Amino acid sequence: MLRYDNIARFEDGEVLILDRRIYPEKKEFVRCKTYLDVAKALTDMVTQSAGPYTAGPLGLALAAWEIRDRSEEDQKAFLTKAAFDISNARPTTSKRMSLLCGECLEAAFEAMEKGESTWDAIVKRTTELNDERYSQIGKIAGYLVEKFPEKGHIMTYCFAETIVGMMLKECRAKGKEIKLFCPETRPYFQGARLTASVCSDMGFDVTVITDGMPAFVMKKEGIDLFTTAADAICCDGYVVNKVGTCNTAIVAKHFGVPYYVTGAPDGAHKTVDTIDLEMRDGEFTLQAMGVRTAQEGVKGYYPAFDITPPELVTGVVTDLGIYSPYELDKYFKHTDGKIRVVV
Amino acid sequence: MLRYDNIARFEDGEVLILDRRIYPEKKEFVRCKTYLDVAKALTDMVTQSAGPYTAGPLGLALAAWEIRDRSEEDQKAFLTKAAFDISNARPTTSKRMSLLCGECLEAAFEAMEKGESTWDAIVKRTTELNDERYSQIGKIAGYLVEKFPEKGHIMTYCFAETIVGMMLKECRAKGKEIKLFCPETRPYFQGARLTASVCSDMGFDVTVITDGMPAFVMKKEGIDLFTTAADAICCDGYVVNKVGTCNTAIVAKHFGVPYYVTGAPDGAHKTVDTIDLEMRDGEFTLQAMGVRTAQEGVKGYYPAFDITPPELVTGVVTDLGIYSPYELDKYFKHTDGKIRVVV
Repeated sequence: MLRYDNIARFEDGEVLILDRRIYPEKKEFVRCKTYLDVAKALTDMVTQSAGPYTAGPLGLALAAWEIRDRSEEDQKAFLTKAAFDISNARPTTSKRMSLLCGECLEAAFEAMEKGESTWDAIVKRTTELNDERYSQIGKIAGYLVEKFPEKGHIMTYCFAETIVGMMLKECRAKGKEIKLFCPETRPYFQGARLTASVCSDMGFDVTVITDGMPAFVMKKEGIDLFTTAADAICCDGYVVNKVGTCNTAIVAKHFGVPYYVTGAPDGAHKTVDTIDLEMRDGEFTLQAMGVRTAQEGVKGYYPAFDITPPELVTGVVTDLGIYSPYELDKYFKHTDGKIRVVV
Repeated sequence: MLRYDNIARFEDGEVLILDRRIYPEKKEFVRCKTYLDVAKALTDMVTQSAGPYTAGPLGLALAAWEIRDRSEEDQKAFLTKAAFDISNARPTTSKRMSLLCGECLEAAFEAMEKGESTWDAIVKRTTELNDERYSQIGKIAGYLVEKFPEKGHIMTYCFAETIVGMMLKECRAKGKEIKLFCPETRPYFQGARLTASVCSDMGFDVTVITDGMPAFVMKKEGIDLFTTAADAICCDGYVVNKVGTCNTAIVAKHFGVPYYVTGAPDGAHKTVDTIDLEMRDGEFTLQAMGVRTAQEGVKGYYPAFDITPPELVTGVVTDLGIYSPYELDKYFKHTDGKIRVVV
C-alpha cells in the first residue's frame, strides 16, 4: 500500500525499517513489533535523513494496531502518547515529526468515528504526506539546479536522500555536467555510504573525500557550489544539519563558494533558541565502521548536529523559490502562514 | 646504542621500524633487510610525523652494512644512491630528509677514511642529530606554552610526536591546566590513535572529535589556541601539514582562535612553489580502519597534505622564538643562514 517501502513499511502488525547504519554493505530491515521499538529505532539511527518521516508515522500505525481491540477512549489516549514518544525520539527534529504525527492522529480519529481501520488510515495519510513532500522536493531540486553551472563541481555534506536523487535527475534533464565531491561525514559515514551511492547509482562522477579535505578540494579542484539539506531551518536563518556542515560552510565562505541549503523554513522554530541540540554518546566517535580508533582513557564527543549562522548561507532553496536566510518571513507570506515539512 | 629505539633501531644488519599504522592497538616492528625496504616503509607510512627522521638515516646505516665488503668507491656510490632514494621516499619532506642524509653521508665518509665502521658512524650521527632536534623542540615547547592560558582548551591536528609530549611536560612544569581536543585526522586517524594516546598517557584530559567538528567545538566549548607541527614551513610563510590542517585553520580564523605552527622555517623552500605535494592512492580514503566505506564505482581522493597560507597563521614557533609568518627571514638572520631541521 505504501509507495515508500524501500525506506520502511507496515505489514502484518510489524514495521520494517531499512537499516541505513549498514546500508549499502548489507540490505537488512529492522523489525519492530511495537511502536516503542520504532521510537527506539529512530533514536538508534536505524534510519536517517528523511527516513524517520516515513518510519515515525508508520510507528503510529503500529500503535493503532497494538491497541485495536480496546475502547475508543483507550485508543485515543494510547495513540496520543505514541505520537508524543515518536516525536521525541530525536530531539532536534521533534517539531517536524510532531507535525506529521499530528496529521496522522487526525486521520486515525476520523477513521475511528467512521468505524474504519485506524492503522490503514495512518498508512494512507503517511503516503499522502510523503507524496506531498516529494512533490515539494522536486520543485526545490528545480530551483537548486538553476544555480549550478552548465559544467562544474558540486560539494554536498551528509546524506540528503531524495533531494540528491531529484537534483541529479534535474541535472540530467537540463544537460548539466556535474561532478560531485562528498565529504564522508564522520562518524556515521553517511556521505561515503549513502550520498555517494545515490550519485554513483545514477551514473554521476562522484568522489568521496574526508571531512578535513574541503579546503584542499575547493582550492585545488574548484567547487562551484556547496549544498546540503537540513534537519531544521529556523525562521531567523540558522541552519541545523549534521555536524560538519558549519565547518564546511565556513570553509566555503573563505573560498567564496556559495552555500545553498534546501528545505522550507520551520515555522515551529521562530528562532534558533528553540533548537534542542542532540548530544549523542561520545564513545561512538572513538570507533570507525565498528573498529576502535583511540585507546582507553581518551574521551569521545559527539554532537549530532551543528548550527550554521545565516551569514554563511547564500540562499535557502524552498519549494516556492530561493530566499535570503534573512528574509524567510517572505516564504510564509506565500504559504498563508501554513507550516510545511520539507526535507 | 641509539636512544630512539622506540621509533626505529638498527641491529644485526636490519632496521626495525615501529609500525605506527597499527599502533597503539598493536606494537609491532617492520623488519627491513635492505635500505630499499626502509625507503618503501617510509613511502608506505609505516612511521609518521618525525619518525622518518630516525628511520630514514638508519636506512642509510643499513645501506652501509649492505655494501661493507666492497671497495671504497663502490661504497660511496651506493651510499650516495641510497641517500637519494631514502630522501625521495616521500616527496613533500624530501628536502628535510636529504639534509639529514647529507650529514650522515659525511660522517660515513669520514669513518671510511679512518678505517672505522661506516654504519656505526651513521647510527652515531643519527643519534646526535636527534639529540639536537629534541633540544630544539624543547625550546619550541617553552615558547609555545607561554601562549597558553593558565587554564584552557587547546586544539591540535594530526600527530606531532615529540612536540606534543614536550608541550605537555612544559604545561605541567608551569602549572597550566590544559584540556586537549584532537580531531581524529582521517584517513589514518593519527589524531585519534597517536596524539590522543600521548596526551592520555601523560595524564591529560583529552577528547577526540571528528575532523568536521572543530567549528562546533570552538563555538560550544571554546578553544583558546590551535597548534600543529608541519611537514614544511616555507620561507614565505606557507605551512605544509597533514591534510585537514588548512581546513581547521580557516575555521580557527573564523572564530578568532590563534593558530601557532611549531618548527623552524625550511631554508630549502624559499617559497611554497618548490613544494611537491604528495597525492596518495585515493582508494585509501574509501576505507576506515580497514573496513570499506563506499560502494564500488565511487572514486576516492587523497592528498597527504594541504597548504595553509600565512594569513591564517598567527605565529611560527621556532627554537629561537616566535616569528610572524611574514618575517621568517629574521629567523635566518639569527642562525647565520644555517639551515636547521626541526619538527
